[in-house]
Amino acid sequence: MPPGDTGECAERDGLPSPTAAASAASLTSRARGNVVLGFLAATAMAILSELATEVFIPITAVIGIAFAVVQWVLVSRVKLSPAAAVAGGGKNGGYGDYLIEEEEGLNDHNVVVKCAEIQKAISEGATSFLYTEYQYVGIFMSIFAVVIFLFLGSVEGFSTKSQPCTYSKDKYCKPALFNALFSTVAFLLGAITSLVSGFLGMKIATYANARTTLEARKGVGKAFITAFRSGAVMGFLLASSGLVVLYIAINAFKLYYGDDWEGLFESITGYGLGGSSMALFGRVGGGIYTKAADVGADLVGKVERNIPEDDPRNPAVIADNVGDNVGDIAGMGSDLFGSYAESSCAALVVASISSFGINHDFTGMCFPLLVSSVGIIVCLITTLFATDFFEIKAVKEIEPALKKQLIISTALMTVGIAIITWLALPAKFTIFNFGAQKEVTNWGLFFCVAIGLWAGLIIGFVTEYYTSNAYSPVQDVADSCRTGAATNVIFGLALGYKSVIIPIFAIAVSIYVSFSIAAMYGIAVAALGMLSTIATGLAIDAYGPISDNAGGIAEMAGMSHRIRERTDALDAAGNTTAAIGKGFAIGSAALVSLALFGAFVSRAGVKVVDVLSPKVFIGLIVGAMLPYWFSAMTMKSVGSAALKMVEEVRRQFNTIPGLMEGTGKPDYATCVKISTDASIKEMIPPGALVMLTPLIVGTLFGVETLSGVLAGALVSGVQIAISASNTGGAWDNAKKYIEAGASEHARTLGPKGSDCHKAAVIGDTIGDPLKDTSGPSLNILIKLMAVESLVFAPFFATHGGLLFKYF
Amino acid sequence: MPPGDTGECAERDGLPSPTAAASAASLTSRARGNVVLGFLAATAMAILSELATEVFIPITAVIGIAFAVVQWVLVSRVKLSPAAAVAGGGKNGGYGDYLIEEEEGLNDHNVVVKCAEIQKAISEGATSFLYTEYQYVGIFMSIFAVVIFLFLGSVEGFSTKSQPCTYSKDKYCKPALFNALFSTVAFLLGAITSLVSGFLGMKIATYANARTTLEARKGVGKAFITAFRSGAVMGFLLASSGLVVLYIAINAFKLYYGDDWEGLFESITGYGLGGSSMALFGRVGGGIYTKAADVGADLVGKVERNIPEDDPRNPAVIADNVGDNVGDIAGMGSDLFGSYAESSCAALVVASISSFGINHDFTGMCFPLLVSSVGIIVCLITTLFATDFFEIKAVKEIEPALKKQLIISTALMTVGIAIITWLALPAKFTIFNFGAQKEVTNWGLFFCVAIGLWAGLIIGFVTEYYTSNAYSPVQDVADSCRTGAATNVIFGLALGYKSVIIPIFAIAVSIYVSFSIAAMYGIAVAALGMLSTIATGLAIDAYGPISDNAGGIAEMAGMSHRIRERTDALDAAGNTTAAIGKGFAIGSAALVSLALFGAFVSRAGVKVVDVLSPKVFIGLIVGAMLPYWFSAMTMKSVGSAALKMVEEVRRQFNTIPGLMEGTGKPDYATCVKISTDASIKEMIPPGALVMLTPLIVGTLFGVETLSGVLAGALVSGVQIAISASNTGGAWDNAKKYIEAGASEHARTLGPKGSDCHKAAVIGDTIGDPLKDTSGPSLNILIKLMAVESLVFAPFFATHGGLLFKYF
Repeated sequence: MPPGDTGECAERDGLPSPTAAASAASLTSRARGNVVLGFLAATAMAILSELATEVFIPITAVIGIAFAVVQWVLVSRVKLSPAAAVAGGGKNGGYGDYLIEEEEGLNDHNVVVKCAEIQKAISEGATSFLYTEYQYVGIFMSIFAVVIFLFLGSVEGFSTKSQPCTYSKDKYCKPALFNALFSTVAFLLGAITSLVSGFLGMKIATYANARTTLEARKGVGKAFITAFRSGAVMGFLLASSGLVVLYIAINAFKLYYGDDWEGLFESITGYGLGGSSMALFGRVGGGIYTKAADVGADLVGKVERNIPEDDPRNPAVIADNVGDNVGDIAGMGSDLFGSYAESSCAALVVASISSFGINHDFTGMCFPLLVSSVGIIVCLITTLFATDFFEIKAVKEIEPALKKQLIISTALMTVGIAIITWLALPAKFTIFNFGAQKEVTNWGLFFCVAIGLWAGLIIGFVTEYYTSNAYSPVQDVADSCRTGAATNVIFGLALGYKSVIIPIFAIAVSIYVSFSIAAMYGIAVAALGMLSTIATGLAIDAYGPISDNAGGIAEMAGMSHRIRERTDALDAAGNTTAAIGKGFAIGSAALVSLALFGAFVSRAGVKVVDVLSPKVFIGLIVGAMLPYWFSAMTMKSVGSAALKMVEEVRRQFNTIPGLMEGTGKPDYATCVKISTDASIKEMIPPGALVMLTPLIVGTLFGVETLSGVLAGALVSGVQIAISASNTGGAWDNAKKYIEAGASEHARTLGPKGSDCHKAAVIGDTIGDPLKDTSGPSLNILIKLMAVESLVFAPFFATHGGLLFKYF
Repeated sequence: MPPGDTGECAERDGLPSPTAAASAASLTSRARGNVVLGFLAATAMAILSELATEVFIPITAVIGIAFAVVQWVLVSRVKLSPAAAVAGGGKNGGYGDYLIEEEEGLNDHNVVVKCAEIQKAISEGATSFLYTEYQYVGIFMSIFAVVIFLFLGSVEGFSTKSQPCTYSKDKYCKPALFNALFSTVAFLLGAITSLVSGFLGMKIATYANARTTLEARKGVGKAFITAFRSGAVMGFLLASSGLVVLYIAINAFKLYYGDDWEGLFESITGYGLGGSSMALFGRVGGGIYTKAADVGADLVGKVERNIPEDDPRNPAVIADNVGDNVGDIAGMGSDLFGSYAESSCAALVVASISSFGINHDFTGMCFPLLVSSVGIIVCLITTLFATDFFEIKAVKEIEPALKKQLIISTALMTVGIAIITWLALPAKFTIFNFGAQKEVTNWGLFFCVAIGLWAGLIIGFVTEYYTSNAYSPVQDVADSCRTGAATNVIFGLALGYKSVIIPIFAIAVSIYVSFSIAAMYGIAVAALGMLSTIATGLAIDAYGPISDNAGGIAEMAGMSHRIRERTDALDAAGNTTAAIGKGFAIGSAALVSLALFGAFVSRAGVKVVDVLSPKVFIGLIVGAMLPYWFSAMTMKSVGSAALKMVEEVRRQFNTIPGLMEGTGKPDYATCVKISTDASIKEMIPPGALVMLTPLIVGTLFGVETLSGVLAGALVSGVQIAISASNTGGAWDNAKKYIEAGASEHARTLGPKGSDCHKAAVIGDTIGDPLKDTSGPSLNILIKLMAVESLVFAPFFATHGGLLFKYF
């Protein structure tokens, strides 16, 4: 809306009193675009015009989507139909000029047919599970949408009259009923976008896995490129669609809200809540599915029957591979989309009560979206480094190549942020924070974004150090297998605990610095900085499970040992990068939820969250307990589902004649059904715990206790999440270290089947639910409770704390 | 000091302004005994006179010590010299009248000689370790004493002039230099009392273990009474000496401080710090010792060589038994003494700035000590229920008997608290809390103490439910061993996480209710209430390791399977009660440290600890990380020491001829030395982490960040401590459940040596460092950092926050 426009909010104009802290809240309100306040007059306007912003954001999103499509086309050149495969093999799929490794089995028709069959089975299993999951989640989401509408609508008794504004009681804002309606719409939009993101990711992954296997025949470099490109498809699709949907929603809502930026961005927060709610069920459901199948398959197959991983004789093997796609791909996709949506919403909400809001500086307001836009471009360039500028020629180059992705994207992004900050932000602007105002320079804000970005890189490297078998921590864990599973577990747990130290310091420093520079807005954009390279992060993340699946397909299709070794090497690097991805997700979750927490506190009118107040303290200690409660549920769920799976697999081995000899055919479908049923049933209680806690605490105990709960869950959950992910990653790679036997030391521990290796397998199995179910779900717990509290803040502020009111 | 007395502080008299919150601080100061303020005039004086209080406290302490001596004499009637044993055996040691079980091997001279020998070896090993440990700790304590003196003395530049008081700037208090001196003295006093408590406990335990074994020949009832009486010796000695030393110190310090109650109790806090510092090293050093030996012995003996636990052929067996005494007895004794000292100090400090301080109501002031006095009497009566009023006739009666101890002591104590509250407190009095005053009735305060007491019982029962193999949680864990060690570990971890829920709610409710009634004083006396039955708690706690040792001695002395079964039954009950004891210790630690935290904040002049301030928040998140860092250190230490032990034990098995056949003699001393060296070396870094964190944070970042660190460590540490203890306890008892094979279900899992049992042994081994090293040390971490901050508060308030001052 151009300056000078006189919309329906015109009656709310007026100069706020310019004195002291108490008036800051009123400052945040609806001074109109043409009423530039005296003390804000000095702030220059941004270089980037409103029109440029309005063009730049959707264009980058379109570029991102186009890039994703191009990658998909490149992946699809690997043909899965036997005839074409032979032809493709002959033509080397278009890459004929740099074939450097020995090719084998390229002309084996049967292999290609088998791969295609297995891929189909996996894809169908995943699709059918997701449909089932989405049905249940759909019901839940519909109910929750009604809850949102009723709770928020009831704030002013479903009145359709305009109400006094939050930050300036003498002005009038849009009626609560419409805020409720738009919040509900935003919630559903977020949920659907998250769902689509996860589903598309799964589709791509199940499209790419067999193709990676086939490419592995041509060499590790080819396989790497196929897997990585597929990951990139998902990364770019998700980052771009997340951005474009949010952008469209903002513009659409603006048609109603006009200049009521506060109301607009308050409603938009529903988008984050929707994304994260979906992510919760995706992560938990998918996590239980994948780990029940994985643990069940390993316990009978590897430990009891001594058959290799992914052996087609194992009845749980298809379920295991389906699990990778629904858990590590669809679940993770929804999760990171949720983080992205929330950090954008947090930044927008905080910005809406800054001088951008007062000046109605559209470009400044959209700074969070602009950062994401730049991120897409930067990630696009970065991806080319992995797929086109360089090529992988040997196994040992895989991990450095992925690491380089992180470094390049971070370095380029730093430049990108600097440019966009210079272009999009005025040299000086004002941020309001709990009633105090803060002058911020654009360079200061650049620093906030950059510190988040680099803190993410540090967390990534620390995670790599603790989970890659190239360094001493994992090697020590592997070494401790000499004395059995018990010492392996003790060392692994200690490693996870220790790996928390540096990330926490990195997060703490980011928080302190960015808050000092730009209060809660600084923290919100720091989170956004950490997530700005999300497309690359997701590409790396998704690459892992695709490689894992590729290995599974190679094994099942009966391909040679050599192919399996190549996919294993891809997978080992994927384990480390998965841990890095989780590190990012957790670090950003900490920052995002702190920013959301700040916005909630501000919106709920809490002036101070004093630990010394018993209302807050009991919230704090109970909040710190929630991650344990949640983890207990999810781990027990995985355990119980795995037990059922073990029984079924054992039953099949015992009753199906010729199964072990490879003459009988296992009943894959029953195992898929066990995983599906277990995960659908078991995802409800932990999901309910997370979704209901803020509602119950806010309604019964009020906003102070809820603040305590959020802070407690945040500071305690971050630690468990990091340690669980890293412990699990370390155990997995300690096992792979022994299996690969790449060094003198590793060979003294191996080979496969030795006592050391058995101890390592036990550690790996324990780590599965830690690193893929409870750990990564915890960052959703932290964020989701914060964003939910923010969405319901108007209700809690008005009607919350029933218990204390009547006692 | 009688009312009307005019000491040297007379110049500080004066009426504080009676208005509003701001004046409350000044109210807390030195209004003299005869200047009863108008609004306090209504408060009636207590029924118990000052003289009665002065007599009652020391008398109960003396009764407690006398009772301990009587128990010791009764235990000593079991003779360890062969001739006397036969005579004693013939006369049945005086209990001839209720011998009900089959006696066996009573006349076997060799057995008695062997038991005496083993006991001597254990006792010597424990004594020598403790001497070594105390040497190192002595050096550390001396240095720390100097630090205390220098830091506190420097607050006013080592000036010997009186300084303005903290809570009332217009009055003068004793010079900081003398506060520093007295704090240092109190610190040393606390450390020495703690040291003596631990040492005496160890002496008693190593005196009683072989005697318990010998009594086991006569039946499980006799063995139980011997073990329990010995535990009681320790419990009563510790509770009484802790009380009497504190009482004497208060009276001695009062000679100098006169009516400066604030200064007096500020200095007395050093007693808590000394006790806890000693406890930290005792717990960590002892914990590493015992678990290195235990894990090392089990890994080679049970897992590799398939010989039973405590088999004399195992070279680490003596070290293992020594470990029980230095870790679970001496370490735990110091720990609980520390809790007791700190909760008393916290209550006294808070009380010193209440109307008791203003009225110089000695009896009211000493209320915390009076509660402890009543506790000793109550526990004395309770003990008789176990040893004299009833008798244990069968294995299945052991656990109920111990449980009854908890219930009886809690029920009696509730009455005791009611009486002493009625006698010792005026009907109404005033408590000051962060500048606000609060009227409290004596019945309100009764409620505070009682809620702490009953919360302790609830925590105890929940712990029992989750760690006793009589209930489904442990049985489920045992059942999960069917599918191997991995599911056992997953279920065990989930159980530990789940077991946190109810205790946290119990703690939260206690905090809310007691704070609502009497602010921080309410929380301090709630902690005291939880610890008031410490003598019984310690007796039950110490009973466990004594039984464990008795079993070890029976095995080593080559006594029959039956004897071993009896001691095993005692030990299984001991595992549960040990977990209960740890639950108490942790619950009370949470309350104590919150009270200390409140006192610290008050003393440091922090008005509000706002989570939304970045200084506080970074403290919070880093504080929440500290328990992980600490656990990583201690678990890694146990792991490394265990690896060394394993290598040594393997070496001995491989090189000493005839060791497996029982003809060669193992070299016990080397194993003892490995444990000793490892624990001394490894206790330094975690000890330094805990001791230095408050100093560094307070000095560099100031009191706000330090407040955050304390709160973060508290809310996060409590969870890990509870879950670690319970997970470990559950694994241990799941293993025992399978071994005992007492039910149809258990028998399907067993017997010893089956795959299920092997999986259970792995779980048990992992649980060892969790439940006996890192878990129980965490409550010391929480308390110690809080009490240390309180002691150094004057320094931090004056000179702290250097980093923020210069940036």
